[in-house]
Amino acid sequence: MKVDRTVAHDLLAEYGALIDMAKFDEWLDLFAEECRYQILPRENFDRGLPAALVLCDSRAMLEDRIRALREANKYNIHNDRHVIGLPRILDEGLALEAPFAVYQTDQEGETRLFATGLYRDRLKISGPRLRISDKLVLLDTFAIPSLLSTPL
Amino acid sequence: MKVDRTVAHDLLAEYGALIDMAKFDEWLDLFAEECRYQILPRENFDRGLPAALVLCDSRAMLEDRIRALREANKYNIHNDRHVIGLPRILDEGLALEAPFAVYQTDQEGETRLFATGLYRDRLKISGPRLRISDKLVLLDTFAIPSLLSTPL
Amino acid sequence: MKVDRTVAHDLLAEYGALIDMAKFDEWLDLFAEECRYQILPRENFDRGLPAALVLCDSRAMLEDRIRALREANKYNIHNDRHVIGLPRILDEGLALEAPFAVYQTDQEGETRLFATGLYRDRLKISGPRLRISDKLVLLDTFAIPSLLSTPL
Repeated sequence: MKVDRTVAHDLLAEYGALIDMAKFDEWLDLFAEECRYQILPRENFDRGLPAALVLCDSRAMLEDRIRALREANKYNIHNDRHVIGLPRILDEGLALEAPFAVYQTDQEGETRLFATGLYRDRLKISGPRLRISDKLVLLDTFAIPSLLSTPL
Repeated sequence: MKVDRTVAHDLLAEYGALIDMAKFDEWLDLFAEECRYQILPRENFDRGLPAALVLCDSRAMLEDRIRALREANKYNIHNDRHVIGLPRILDEGLALEAPFAVYQTDQEGETRLFATGLYRDRLKISGPRLRISDKLVLLDTFAIPSLLSTPL
Repeated sequence: MKVDRTVAHDLLAEYGALIDMAKFDEWLDLFAEECRYQILPRENFDRGLPAALVLCDSRAMLEDRIRALREANKYNIHNDRHVIGLPRILDEGLALEAPFAVYQTDQEGETRLFATGLYRDRLKISGPRLRISDKLVLLDTFAIPSLLSTPL
């Protein structure tokens, strides 16, 4: 292992927790300076179709996207909860895959399953830390009603 | 790390499993002699409102509560399943945060999402073991239909 | 610990991921040559009733079952997502228990909770690897609409 697996665990736990607390600046800081973030229905991925629902291929683009989400969320108020399952640690700790379920709770207090899928991350040693250099969010469905509402 | 992270993992896994098996005496034994257990809607927590849905500030109170639940559950028969996601280990292993989803299955065999939220635990070294000294259950919703039905 | 706990973690993560990717040959390879695989409603288990919904007591039987599932799934097309929660590591790493939730997404793109339950596994050192010698899937419900549709 080039990287201790606990570091990858921590990064994943942090990833979900920061979105759920709406701490988006800290969340952005989990990504490497040069990074890519994609949301792709798994069907497209399985068929080799590259059509992403979301594609940010720099941190600046990711920052823009987060700014837009924050604006949109003034009108669509909800809370997220990421439950991330046991991950597979690959490539000596420099890659991982983890299944996830995201729940949303609206202002009436109703909690619903929002999405399930698989994270496929490539990680990069960045000084004393590990950062995400490539994040592929494989969504189980192509039919997300309000995809813009939250980062996954 | 003052405490090995695997010990915190084990404590969390144990916590959910013992509720799901309705082994409440063993579950109580996960708490330190002096302990606090609170269920709070995250909204209240975020706004600094201390109004807890449940507040037990001693193990004796927690025991009373469990006794009441057992009585109530003679009439409201269901099974729980806690799925606890990857935790963040904080304060050198003496604190942790973990997202959870709890499902309930009723006597007709229907399984439903019951609640999602975040555990925020403070732990305490107690002889050879680690016990929970303070457990804050942040619930994603304030609208729990039958909050008394189960410990979270 | 006879077995490092990370190996048990990996085996569980692998188990769910391989089903979700429909890599059933690799999934079968997680089982020992002599193995047992059972699906049992927890109610039956709690009452000591041995009536299993599924019982394969050799790998050959498990292979047959998988072949039948593949045939059936030509008509019932869906994708699975296993989210496996924190496990309890028992018997020095040679046994484990882990809660799970399985979601299914159909061809219309609708994702639904399919089942929740508990894995109870016995593991066996098999050359350089760890394999499953006995897997008990305790289902929270006896009322699975289409049990044949997927391995759990």
